[in-house]
Amino acid sequence: MIRVTVWNEYYHENPRYEHATTKAMELHPNGLHETVAEIVRELGADKVTVRTAWQDQPEHGLTEEVLSNTDVLIWWGHMKHHEVADEIVERVYNRVMEGMGFIGLHSAHHSKVFKKLNGTTCNLKWRDGTYERVFTTCPSHPIARGIPEHFELGVEECYGEFFDIAKPDDVVFQGWFDIGEVFRSGCTFTRGYGKIFYFQPGHETNLAFQNPYVRRIIQNAVEWCYSDVKAPYIGAPQIKTTLEDQRLEKAEGDYLRFF
Amino acid sequence: MIRVTVWNEYYHENPRYEHATTKAMELHPNGLHETVAEIVRELGADKVTVRTAWQDQPEHGLTEEVLSNTDVLIWWGHMKHHEVADEIVERVYNRVMEGMGFIGLHSAHHSKVFKKLNGTTCNLKWRDGTYERVFTTCPSHPIARGIPEHFELGVEECYGEFFDIAKPDDVVFQGWFDIGEVFRSGCTFTRGYGKIFYFQPGHETNLAFQNPYVRRIIQNAVEWCYSDVKAPYIGAPQIKTTLEDQRLEKAEGDYLRFF
Amino acid sequence: MIRVTVWNEYYHENPRYEHATTKAMELHPNGLHETVAEIVRELGADKVTVRTAWQDQPEHGLTEEVLSNTDVLIWWGHMKHHEVADEIVERVYNRVMEGMGFIGLHSAHHSKVFKKLNGTTCNLKWRDGTYERVFTTCPSHPIARGIPEHFELGVEECYGEFFDIAKPDDVVFQGWFDIGEVFRSGCTFTRGYGKIFYFQPGHETNLAFQNPYVRRIIQNAVEWCYSDVKAPYIGAPQIKTTLEDQRLEKAEGDYLRFF
Amino acid sequence: MIRVTVWNEYYHENPRYEHATTKAMELHPNGLHETVAEIVRELGADKVTVRTAWQDQPEHGLTEEVLSNTDVLIWWGHMKHHEVADEIVERVYNRVMEGMGFIGLHSAHHSKVFKKLNGTTCNLKWRDGTYERVFTTCPSHPIARGIPEHFELGVEECYGEFFDIAKPDDVVFQGWFDIGEVFRSGCTFTRGYGKIFYFQPGHETNLAFQNPYVRRIIQNAVEWCYSDVKAPYIGAPQIKTTLEDQRLEKAEGDYLRFF
Repeated sequence: MIRVTVWNEYYHENPRYEHATTKAMELHPNGLHETVAEIVRELGADKVTVRTAWQDQPEHGLTEEVLSNTDVLIWWGHMKHHEVADEIVERVYNRVMEGMGFIGLHSAHHSKVFKKLNGTTCNLKWRDGTYERVFTTCPSHPIARGIPEHFELGVEECYGEFFDIAKPDDVVFQGWFDIGEVFRSGCTFTRGYGKIFYFQPGHETNLAFQNPYVRRIIQNAVEWCYSDVKAPYIGAPQIKTTLEDQRLEKAEGDYLRFF
Repeated sequence: MIRVTVWNEYYHENPRYEHATTKAMELHPNGLHETVAEIVRELGADKVTVRTAWQDQPEHGLTEEVLSNTDVLIWWGHMKHHEVADEIVERVYNRVMEGMGFIGLHSAHHSKVFKKLNGTTCNLKWRDGTYERVFTTCPSHPIARGIPEHFELGVEECYGEFFDIAKPDDVVFQGWFDIGEVFRSGCTFTRGYGKIFYFQPGHETNLAFQNPYVRRIIQNAVEWCYSDVKAPYIGAPQIKTTLEDQRLEKAEGDYLRFF
Repeated sequence: MIRVTVWNEYYHENPRYEHATTKAMELHPNGLHETVAEIVRELGADKVTVRTAWQDQPEHGLTEEVLSNTDVLIWWGHMKHHEVADEIVERVYNRVMEGMGFIGLHSAHHSKVFKKLNGTTCNLKWRDGTYERVFTTCPSHPIARGIPEHFELGVEECYGEFFDIAKPDDVVFQGWFDIGEVFRSGCTFTRGYGKIFYFQPGHETNLAFQNPYVRRIIQNAVEWCYSDVKAPYIGAPQIKTTLEDQRLEKAEGDYLRFF
Repeated sequence: MIRVTVWNEYYHENPRYEHATTKAMELHPNGLHETVAEIVRELGADKVTVRTAWQDQPEHGLTEEVLSNTDVLIWWGHMKHHEVADEIVERVYNRVMEGMGFIGLHSAHHSKVFKKLNGTTCNLKWRDGTYERVFTTCPSHPIARGIPEHFELGVEECYGEFFDIAKPDDVVFQGWFDIGEVFRSGCTFTRGYGKIFYFQPGHETNLAFQNPYVRRIIQNAVEWCYSDVKAPYIGAPQIKTTLEDQRLEKAEGDYLRFF
């Protein structure tokens, strides 16, 4: 059972904010977190349990209790990155070090957590209202399962290179934009014991989350980012090894003796 | 269901060969392929079906029919690499391009297939009868599931750097040898649509295959190397795209028209 | 001093072939090898010496003597890949293993040598007569020195993903094509002691080789692919280490004694 | 001309501190920064200019003026990582993003800057007073120029796996320790426009910096980390592209027109 938490800044589509847009509210009547949670739930109740959290909740909804019961955290944020408390960023970061998966969607590239995990600025170029086609450039990757060689995403906000990220483990997807831009749209990273996936589609006023391939990719990513490895060293920043640790157990014969 | 074929040159432990050794015959009474097949079968009959093949069979036991029904091929060879027919090498290679997983054990580093998949000499240094400790250097990798931070392998043939391989996707395990050598003992690669794992332990007269961690690693590798992706381009060496292929389906609005 | 050999199949622009085209002959009056050689010579006579070779010469112009005096080999071929003798392919491959740099231009992706170094099919999609823009996706790489964030290549043959190559060390450049394709246009690899660069532009009837950025990239690549490392193991397929090799020289104190 | 700054916490070997040790003071009579600066100066006055800085100086000696005139920063710290001001860490980090090279020596693995650049804990195992042998596992890398297949380092503090770092671009060197540990001793990374090298030898009471191969490696690393690329985006966190940016300049013919 994979325990997923979908986190959202909940701004563009939140009627409580005056800058919320009609389009975003129509597309995400229960908040973008619910839109994404629905996608994850399609994996089936035998595979996943899904909860949501958002920025305006106490501790941004990411209490120690919530995070310690989260295997994969999905993150969507855009306008209020700077208002996320550093203490919560540290908490999420530490859980990734321990093995929690992390999926950053769209403008999460500029979230404090993702930048901290990357060790770079994560800057990029952008422009609204373009046409995107998505290519699968690592077809044997588990996140690409069921995804064709390329698919039409249609209208989506353009993100363009140079995308200032650390070298990904795999660039699973690449985007082509009609205005003359390319982008590493689906990237995997490993940090500590945690597995990370960044995926570029998902602008709040476009239809990416209705696209069946986008949905499948997010579902695949949840499964791929999940890990049941127990990180042994959390809380013990560094280990001084002891003689006992280093004693070799000899399987047979007369080999070198240590100590 | 993962269909696994365990391939073996079947020489050192084959009573039909005068150079077969007592130790190897005792350890592998039904051939080393059976030793390994038993390890894979522990994954359970609901997960895997296992067959074996060896070098002295017609077509080395790797007919078109066998390979087209193999999802993961495990390879053990040592003294008779040069006697493997190039036609069969090509056949195996093509199946990896299509998505068949490939696991090379121990001296398979110098098999024609592994060298062809690597694009390098795969040369290394070696010496018999050393003591090895194995470290997990990529703990969140699926092949490391259930494997501790390090384990004692005990007596094993030493393989040493420089190991002339293409840069692995991940170095999941590293070996330490008492005689003063290190080795990238567990390496993953991607070639075409196929996933590849090389694992250094497994000398025919040592006990690696009885080690519970070695067994688990081989089992994990079978699961990781499996892929159900269908490679679309086999048989069509290169595609000339057509206008129809490139016509964009517009999702909404008034975007650029191509052609 | 970097000793460069520019190799060309010399077909499309060779008046001796009836299928040679006027356009190609006009663009490369002395053969495409001379076009490329001129680019390399701009590095200066104090940095490089350049010679050329082509397919119709004895041993394809790549004798043992020529190759053993080549530090970086540049390769352009297209229609006659299959007519390159396997013996010469093996000879070039072995020199890369020893440390010779290799630069594959444009349709060299399907040359026997490049495929052998990759361990993949190197298949791709293609279409003539498109418009390409090239992005720098690894700006700190030495091959990108002096290249802007992107540049307009203009009309060039489109190569499209999925490009079936081994995972590059770095994807230094990516191409955007107006017909809706993306491509990993500039890729580095390491094989044996050799450094490899593949660069997609360079169709025989287009103007890529006149583009100042393309010229600079080829020049940078020559410098980057050069290595003066002496591969120690050529001719000795594998080393059995001796006791003497493994004796540790103790710097101080009373440490473990081996043997 | 490469402008190098060697930074040191200047504690173990500083007579002003009561915990300073006789051994460290003897080995580094002018501070460890001078020991390292001497190594770099051997590159020649026509290649490098070297200055030093240390933690007790105002702004830790890393003023805006110093950093903006530094091409490669070498960092040695151990006991006082936590006392390095976050503001200076941010300043160094930003310069790496812009293209400054960074070389972390020995216990710099746990410096705030290196951890921030990595996006991981950089934890490891350690033990004093062991014997180390260093292997070259990426022999064609420029940092390995002139370094043999392996060399005896002798007595050095052991650093052991699992070393919790982001996957390196290249593992150029690996360490073998007599007490049964291995370590990725020489690792390269790219972050932003900056090139990074981490090198494990260099304990303050051992003789690593007298070893000719260690000296050569540090010199090679200075040259490799240097980059004259001008990062175009510093100060502009993200770029919104304009129509003018995206207008394609047509090289010839009648191609698609944008806008």
